[in-house]
Amino acid sequence: MGKYTIGVDFGTLSGRAVLVSLEQGDVIASEVLNYESGVIEEVIPQTTVRLGIDYALQDPKDYLEVLSVTIPKVLEKSGVDKADVIGLAIDFTACTLVPVDANNTPLSFLDSWREHPHAWTKLWKHHAAQKYADQLNALAHETHESWIHRYGGKISSEWLFPKVMQVCVEAPEIYEATDNFIEAADWVISQLTGNVIRNTCTLGYKAIYHHQEGFPSPAFFKQLDPRLEHVVNDKIKGEIKAVGEKAGTLLPEWATRLGLLPSTAVAVANVDAHVSAPAVNTVKPGQMLMIMGTSTCDILLGDQEKSVPGICGVVYDGVIPGYFGYESGQSAVGDIFGWFTENYIDSNITHAAASKGLTVHAYLEEEASKLRVGESGLLSLDWNGGNRSILVDVDVSGIIFGLTLATKPHELYRALIESTAFGKRIIIDNYEAHGVPVDEVYVCGGLPNKNKLLLQIYADVLNREIKMADSEHTPALGSAMFAAVAAHDMGGYASIFEAAAKMAKVKEETIKPIPENVERYEALYQEFKQLHDQFGYGDTVLKRLKRMRG
Amino acid sequence: MGKYTIGVDFGTLSGRAVLVSLEQGDVIASEVLNYESGVIEEVIPQTTVRLGIDYALQDPKDYLEVLSVTIPKVLEKSGVDKADVIGLAIDFTACTLVPVDANNTPLSFLDSWREHPHAWTKLWKHHAAQKYADQLNALAHETHESWIHRYGGKISSEWLFPKVMQVCVEAPEIYEATDNFIEAADWVISQLTGNVIRNTCTLGYKAIYHHQEGFPSPAFFKQLDPRLEHVVNDKIKGEIKAVGEKAGTLLPEWATRLGLLPSTAVAVANVDAHVSAPAVNTVKPGQMLMIMGTSTCDILLGDQEKSVPGICGVVYDGVIPGYFGYESGQSAVGDIFGWFTENYIDSNITHAAASKGLTVHAYLEEEASKLRVGESGLLSLDWNGGNRSILVDVDVSGIIFGLTLATKPHELYRALIESTAFGKRIIIDNYEAHGVPVDEVYVCGGLPNKNKLLLQIYADVLNREIKMADSEHTPALGSAMFAAVAAHDMGGYASIFEAAAKMAKVKEETIKPIPENVERYEALYQEFKQLHDQFGYGDTVLKRLKRMRG
Repeated sequence: MGKYTIGVDFGTLSGRAVLVSLEQGDVIASEVLNYESGVIEEVIPQTTVRLGIDYALQDPKDYLEVLSVTIPKVLEKSGVDKADVIGLAIDFTACTLVPVDANNTPLSFLDSWREHPHAWTKLWKHHAAQKYADQLNALAHETHESWIHRYGGKISSEWLFPKVMQVCVEAPEIYEATDNFIEAADWVISQLTGNVIRNTCTLGYKAIYHHQEGFPSPAFFKQLDPRLEHVVNDKIKGEIKAVGEKAGTLLPEWATRLGLLPSTAVAVANVDAHVSAPAVNTVKPGQMLMIMGTSTCDILLGDQEKSVPGICGVVYDGVIPGYFGYESGQSAVGDIFGWFTENYIDSNITHAAASKGLTVHAYLEEEASKLRVGESGLLSLDWNGGNRSILVDVDVSGIIFGLTLATKPHELYRALIESTAFGKRIIIDNYEAHGVPVDEVYVCGGLPNKNKLLLQIYADVLNREIKMADSEHTPALGSAMFAAVAAHDMGGYASIFEAAAKMAKVKEETIKPIPENVERYEALYQEFKQLHDQFGYGDTVLKRLKRMRG
Repeated sequence: MGKYTIGVDFGTLSGRAVLVSLEQGDVIASEVLNYESGVIEEVIPQTTVRLGIDYALQDPKDYLEVLSVTIPKVLEKSGVDKADVIGLAIDFTACTLVPVDANNTPLSFLDSWREHPHAWTKLWKHHAAQKYADQLNALAHETHESWIHRYGGKISSEWLFPKVMQVCVEAPEIYEATDNFIEAADWVISQLTGNVIRNTCTLGYKAIYHHQEGFPSPAFFKQLDPRLEHVVNDKIKGEIKAVGEKAGTLLPEWATRLGLLPSTAVAVANVDAHVSAPAVNTVKPGQMLMIMGTSTCDILLGDQEKSVPGICGVVYDGVIPGYFGYESGQSAVGDIFGWFTENYIDSNITHAAASKGLTVHAYLEEEASKLRVGESGLLSLDWNGGNRSILVDVDVSGIIFGLTLATKPHELYRALIESTAFGKRIIIDNYEAHGVPVDEVYVCGGLPNKNKLLLQIYADVLNREIKMADSEHTPALGSAMFAAVAAHDMGGYASIFEAAAKMAKVKEETIKPIPENVERYEALYQEFKQLHDQFGYGDTVLKRLKRMRG
């Protein structure tokens, strides 16, 4: 009789549960539930309280509802006996931060606080804490904090401390009332198990935590704001456990509600991007996973901690236990193609696509794939959404070189795809130049399945074979694998490596570089690199143009 | 009783006659006739002879047909007595070159030659002589010919000698049979008057002729190709006369055919762009006329001959008798806006424009005019069609800086307009830096009437008041004015200055710079200038991208 686990992937707008067979990682059933309150950006639900600019909040009740609805549903759909479901794990957006009281109750659940915006859960994309991030970064560089270099020299406004700082400064009464600022991922696990555990992934990538050095010092926080001197001790609570460990078992009331046994092992929480790595068998040093969608997140494993400029972070135990997980990213990838197709598509193209029964993207891809490398004479810098890695700069912008009166939309479309591939090559070369080898490249996410030309361009530009995820539910599958490890003594797997060997889903087909294209792209990439360095560093025309907008 | 003249403007596809009152320059009647053979690009008419790539030929019969049809028609329409029509003048595309035999008959009219492509008239845009232009330019620089600097360092393949060289090398029998390579403009005048006269405008701008130094030397031509040593003496015939002079009177058979008196004065021929200057009262040193359409041609008057890099040419008597006429140009202006609106306009914009009853151009203009200067953060280099002045380089291409995921089409549209205004500022600053002052700026052509935002942007970027032509028929009106000068002893004007003072048509309304915009554009222009110099000179990425296209 086979064993099964459940993985739940909490996204920005919905949660998805999958019930997976441990034998080969097959998804037996899946179920999605949209969050009732979605992303709260304007008014606090059931009130007239308006939110500030760049606010993005959520209601943690929605997370619990996902569990209560989707897990019984996948059990029912699959027909699997609950006795055979040995583990449960979740992955989440991060940093999505819940302020809770001493009872581990979100402040927004309490009548006394629910009308206060800062009592609510700040979603990862809450961008109203930028000025606090700026202060924190400035001080870190001023005082030469060693940890700032682990994060490419910059802490994002999306991360834990800027969000906490915002509460402390703008709503001291909420700060006072908060017993713990906890990641939503960890809070959900605490609800299921009764154990307040902080996972090493979010701690490392979002809360400036190092497995040996710990958090930034009280002295640093004091200098930042005297009220924050003891923020770590007073407001960041919970036992620290590595991803892949067991958080506990289901509390009886939750076992009942979900239709599972109380003995079901529950894994330490994880982050949606990072949890995807084992699901495509990215578990060894030198393996890189690119999660490609509107933006791209790279996860790379290493066996040493190196200081690599321009990455998002490097965290021990952050992705796969025992290894250093490096994270980097490109701010806009699918978003750039979307920007182009949503704004600059003439009716000639709409009609041509329709007459072939193709989407505009598919039509442009088909036309673009007829071009030889370099034929259009175009070269683009992929900075329309700023540049995360390796410039860590939101103030750069896109450039297109080589326009003529004969430049056609499919040529621009291809140039935009190429620009993101060149951007990726910059990231990979940067890792290797700083002593972190990249031996194998995997992709998952929404984009690769939609666009074959894109993958061929990446293979050619990177001059590397590309291996592809073979699941529609990569993050949830990854969670199910971590659940199998948490349940290792109940018939699961001894380690994430063993789980990955059995359950990972990678297509047999790979995308191989085409030697002629590789050679032509090498010449174009050298041009890209030179322009990247010329316009990427210092106070260039791009910065001045941005300032002139004001 | 008032006097009248007729001006005929020979364009690329049609000819237009206007009958004009000398009193105030009012156009009393106008008539257009399309050329029957238009531009001959593929097959010689009534034959199966196919033409080579980049050929563009015409049939001179079409020119005579324009005269025969349109002049009687304007006489009829206007009801003016032929006795009151004292002069006739024409302007033409150039260099449009007719090979004629010793009887001044175009070789293409002769059965013995009409099946031979090189026997036909080469239209200005016949581009099959590029390699001969390249040879000529290379040698001119090698032998340090002084005249090459009068033409911005480069002779165009469109001009007389490259076209003659092509005939000499590729069709020696035609070269042999040709008694004279004559501008179509001058050939038409020779038909009307019986006098073979070469006008100083086409000679100077298209045939490397200088009022004091004459043509390039036989030694130069010998070195270029021994067969060309005596090309000037043997193949370039006719009396040289300045624009504004009288070529003669109508031959009796032409007087009859046109319905005019044989005493009608006929002026020396002229070029369409250059003849426009007096029609907008551009007759004094320091006055510049921009003729704006798909491309832009600038005519600037000076009282000294200066060596100005990157211009098209400087010719004494070339525009207005007694002055140096400087010509410069921008390869693509309206063409850039056309490229954008024809290829990159989403249906959202098409619908929004339609619902307001506007063209796409007008809609984009309306939206773009709501933007503050610099608000979009975009900056573009206007090189989509290469750069005529001041880089004289067909191998540069357009660049757009500052793209974001929020960049909208109307923002790009405005940035493209601005790029052409910045390009114009480069040209004007270049003139002034080389000792040729630009005191006043006038515009005519198709573009200014269609786009008010464009003119305001030009006024703001140039920080100059802009004066506008007030006629739909500017070139033909200019010709009618030169006709009035040719007929000065029959009741016309003593000089083109006097004619311009009475007949020029300039709107009372002018476009004045807006000080706030001037200041903001100054900062953007400094960025443009820096990028212009950075990407405009030397073997830049633009050149390398173009080479990689092959």
